[in-house]
Amino acid sequence: MSTNSEQFLDKITRLDDSTKYNFTNSSKVYVQGSRSDILVPMREIKLSDTITEKGNEPNVPVRVYDTSGVYSDPGAAVDLRAGLAPIRAAWIDERDDTEVLSGVTSTFGKQRQNDLRTEHLRFEHLRAPRRAKEGRNVTQLHYARQGIITPEMEYIAIRENMSYMQAREQAELSGQHPGESFGAALPKEITPEFVRSEVARGRAIIPMNINHPEIEPMIIGRNFLVKINANIGNSALTSSIEEEVEKLTWSAHWGADTVMDLSTGKNIHETREWIIRNSMLPIGTVPIYQALEKVDGVAEDLTWEIFKDTLIEQAEQGVDYFTIHAGVLLRYVPMTAKRVTGIVSRGGSIMAKWCLAHHKENFLYTHFEEICEIMKAYDVSFSLGDGLRPGSVADANDEAQFGELQTLGELTKIAWKHDVQCMIEGPGHVPMHMIKENMDLQLKVCDEAPFYTLGPLTTDIAPGYDHITSGIGAAMIGWYGCAMLCYVTPKEHLGLPNKQDVKDGLIAYKIAAHAADLAKGHPGAQLRDNALSKARFEFRWDDQFNLSLDPDTARSYHDETLPKQSGKVAHFCSMCGPKFCSMKISQEVRDYAAKKEIEDVENALKSGMEEMADTYNESGRELYRRV
Amino acid sequence: MSTNSEQFLDKITRLDDSTKYNFTNSSKVYVQGSRSDILVPMREIKLSDTITEKGNEPNVPVRVYDTSGVYSDPGAAVDLRAGLAPIRAAWIDERDDTEVLSGVTSTFGKQRQNDLRTEHLRFEHLRAPRRAKEGRNVTQLHYARQGIITPEMEYIAIRENMSYMQAREQAELSGQHPGESFGAALPKEITPEFVRSEVARGRAIIPMNINHPEIEPMIIGRNFLVKINANIGNSALTSSIEEEVEKLTWSAHWGADTVMDLSTGKNIHETREWIIRNSMLPIGTVPIYQALEKVDGVAEDLTWEIFKDTLIEQAEQGVDYFTIHAGVLLRYVPMTAKRVTGIVSRGGSIMAKWCLAHHKENFLYTHFEEICEIMKAYDVSFSLGDGLRPGSVADANDEAQFGELQTLGELTKIAWKHDVQCMIEGPGHVPMHMIKENMDLQLKVCDEAPFYTLGPLTTDIAPGYDHITSGIGAAMIGWYGCAMLCYVTPKEHLGLPNKQDVKDGLIAYKIAAHAADLAKGHPGAQLRDNALSKARFEFRWDDQFNLSLDPDTARSYHDETLPKQSGKVAHFCSMCGPKFCSMKISQEVRDYAAKKEIEDVENALKSGMEEMADTYNESGRELYRRV
Repeated sequence: MSTNSEQFLDKITRLDDSTKYNFTNSSKVYVQGSRSDILVPMREIKLSDTITEKGNEPNVPVRVYDTSGVYSDPGAAVDLRAGLAPIRAAWIDERDDTEVLSGVTSTFGKQRQNDLRTEHLRFEHLRAPRRAKEGRNVTQLHYARQGIITPEMEYIAIRENMSYMQAREQAELSGQHPGESFGAALPKEITPEFVRSEVARGRAIIPMNINHPEIEPMIIGRNFLVKINANIGNSALTSSIEEEVEKLTWSAHWGADTVMDLSTGKNIHETREWIIRNSMLPIGTVPIYQALEKVDGVAEDLTWEIFKDTLIEQAEQGVDYFTIHAGVLLRYVPMTAKRVTGIVSRGGSIMAKWCLAHHKENFLYTHFEEICEIMKAYDVSFSLGDGLRPGSVADANDEAQFGELQTLGELTKIAWKHDVQCMIEGPGHVPMHMIKENMDLQLKVCDEAPFYTLGPLTTDIAPGYDHITSGIGAAMIGWYGCAMLCYVTPKEHLGLPNKQDVKDGLIAYKIAAHAADLAKGHPGAQLRDNALSKARFEFRWDDQFNLSLDPDTARSYHDETLPKQSGKVAHFCSMCGPKFCSMKISQEVRDYAAKKEIEDVENALKSGMEEMADTYNESGRELYRRV
Repeated sequence: MSTNSEQFLDKITRLDDSTKYNFTNSSKVYVQGSRSDILVPMREIKLSDTITEKGNEPNVPVRVYDTSGVYSDPGAAVDLRAGLAPIRAAWIDERDDTEVLSGVTSTFGKQRQNDLRTEHLRFEHLRAPRRAKEGRNVTQLHYARQGIITPEMEYIAIRENMSYMQAREQAELSGQHPGESFGAALPKEITPEFVRSEVARGRAIIPMNINHPEIEPMIIGRNFLVKINANIGNSALTSSIEEEVEKLTWSAHWGADTVMDLSTGKNIHETREWIIRNSMLPIGTVPIYQALEKVDGVAEDLTWEIFKDTLIEQAEQGVDYFTIHAGVLLRYVPMTAKRVTGIVSRGGSIMAKWCLAHHKENFLYTHFEEICEIMKAYDVSFSLGDGLRPGSVADANDEAQFGELQTLGELTKIAWKHDVQCMIEGPGHVPMHMIKENMDLQLKVCDEAPFYTLGPLTTDIAPGYDHITSGIGAAMIGWYGCAMLCYVTPKEHLGLPNKQDVKDGLIAYKIAAHAADLAKGHPGAQLRDNALSKARFEFRWDDQFNLSLDPDTARSYHDETLPKQSGKVAHFCSMCGPKFCSMKISQEVRDYAAKKEIEDVENALKSGMEEMADTYNESGRELYRRV
């Protein structure tokens, strides 16, 4: 083993421990499905009791959707060099419609396996790839349309249905926790059959390559929880494999539902292998980036053959969805010339350049059915790229953007004809009043295929804060029906995100997605809000922190002014101090109303019994000590 | 002079320099009105030239609304101990409807002037207060209804009309800068008469106490730019006078349109005096906080007399608007008992406690007309407090909240009967789908009086990030018609904001307000976006930073990966590196389209002239070097 290799593997090994991370007072629970190997992970947040005069009342633990995989399971070992366990392997195998190949089939994949220069970076336990048997289609859409409920679908139903189950449990405990204090009627149940039917309808996708058996199945569709994506990946100027693996686990910890590896720098193939083998999240890529790398960055030199080989290379590694900019047609390109910001999608600009140089139609469009053939052999989902998305509010909703969207609608139907799963990428920079038009048009033109948007950013004037400018647009479009929100970090437009930027972007997008779930009335989404607000109202500070999206930050902000442990049980905080606390006064009002019965107060008002007040004033100033 | 006094004044003097602050490449310009003492400040951002093959094209400087006062004027001296120049004094004097009193008239105000314990903290140049002459009404609403356009109204028209003027100037230069590349038709003009008519209609207010002549007039109404408010103020646990003065100038620098002094700690009277004397921004307060202080924090001991004296005390110092929780009626209080988070407004909970203790109606309600008499003698505006706003999404839009809003509507009409200016405070915690109902109901019930909301927060689960949870709601309600957005800092629910929190809150709210202006189609709001996006597209990095809301952060983020000056002129950035830059490729496409004429490309497409492409490929790979 070379010194290079030792150094590299040493770095990776050191990561094993630092990727283990959990939230205070949280534990990992697994809910078993109809078979023993369906084990759906959830994070359970334990709460302290509510202390009342009558004694302690327990607060039901809150279970939250958990994207963090075994990295947050104290009982599981992490070995990044070995990769994750292939929990889905048996399900794929049982279907008996795939075969294990003797080796990778792409030209480039073979080259890389034999490239001595990258040997020291290679993942050690390369698995032979699977592919559909001749004539078979192995997509979840194909199964769904045949009426088959796969284990993956059942897994997803349990995962998405969790909040319904909690709401039901809480209702059963309603003696202690009256339903009305939780605000909502009981939500509707999400069943495996519902998952199947949404996939069959094309309204949801399950991105899940057969060569990515490590995945914890998840679904993207507007009748499910709104999902978020984190972009990672190196660039020509910065980053290494171990940094990207760290960004992956870090993203998962902070709630990313999928991760896109947008590497454009060195060792793209090896970087991706390490990411996929250690990811329980679906991984998306933009294959044209790597294809361009293969032609030394000269867009005109791109060919269908090089691109096709790249698709197969990545499909055999296990990429779960491909962004394909097949909607950038030659006739749309001149429409961008008068824009304030032209074409801002990298993939879009590459294809535009190719089209103009060759005076030919986009080869991704002309070869689209061939691409479908590849996708269905591995169950890679389409993420049809919006190469002409607006890069400034001035360019929003213009003819180039909406022209491309029409084409993406056509392509969706072609993908569906092949039973290939498909979602549609969307903008970009769009002022608030123009967001809904995007969503409505996408649903119409693409026949309700899931929408997957980047923000949108609602103004251009805040570089450094585009997680916020775009969080606004993301929350709104999520409410309107967008299925997945691609995060934007504070570094957008300025530089490559570091770990803190990744976290900041993810928290902003968890907020946007959750705000959208609330606005859509998603089953049980409000349970966590209610539990946190109840904790806040009852001064259960630690519970408030633990229920929050980022307990570390909430706790540290609180501790800046009230650092001692006594502050955690104080019935006030540093904002108002002990005298002025409205929560405290309000709780007193509530206790009073509960004791005296509301009618009592109202009667007093009606009959103008001011003497009651006088009696009270004589008997003592402490309102709530009154007998 | 005592040592205490010397120490304190020394701290203040040291602040003089640190409050001087400006943005790179920005300068202060003053636009003169119809008289020489109407000098409206604006910030002008100079831009570098666009470099083209034909030579350099100048970019018109962008003027932006400027709240930072003389603190950003290099030509002006700052002397916090002397306070700001009373630029409005002549206008007030000329109206000849006020008189200068021989001294303060409130009991408490007199006490404090003679209190030896606070002598060392006293502002040195106390001015004798003004009051309306007997029988006169000195509100801007009163003048407006009489058809009078005050100098203040003209000042505001110039300030708000700036972007219209810029759009017109740019159109005149359209040879170089075609109108279509700026996206919008010419916006409508804001005239002094329009300002008057909006104030007369009650649809806008000009918060501006006659005892605050240092103010730079501004307007709050939904047909003007959306405004933002920053809360500052000490608490029983932290902060000092000099810190609050620093927060004031810091808030102004980052774009606060008004500031509320919510002090509940020590020396409230003196703190307020220092703030007002150094503020060109309107200052709002919640007088019940100080009144409660006067009765040692025992809500039941509050009386109308103590409260009235507090109003006069603060009105004679120059407070521009008072939050008055007159809508918290006794009958609404029991409606909050079953809420998840009861009453979360401090003022609301104080009044609720008072009402229950006395079994009497809220004295702010029963004495409302007397309050109006005080307000109109000084031109203090109402900010009718929403004491029963929801503190969690579970409590949003409930009967308590909307019951109170009905009462606020009644009170608005009473205020208007007295020609007293009036705005209405709004929530709070509201999920996205319930925000519009708030705005629509407020407009209806309060007959279009300006709405002034706290956020709203669209989810409860992100303490530490409530500038984002609420920035989403704020942007939306601003778009729907809210006139002013009260900021929420990251410390909300957790602690008192420090300087960084104040800045973070303000930037988030400048984003929300600007996003709302864009969505409302406010005259010229998009000019800044377009200028920044053009700079971005042309790789004018410094211009991009200088046009942004926070140039310091944008610049430092960029410099993390490309720190050298050469990075500022690089036609790529660290995100993609030189090969993959979509902006660069896109610009090439644009140059190409411009050179070849669009028709050429379309013809090529139509006639399938692929040989053209072949010719090109033979003649060289560099697309844009082609003749």
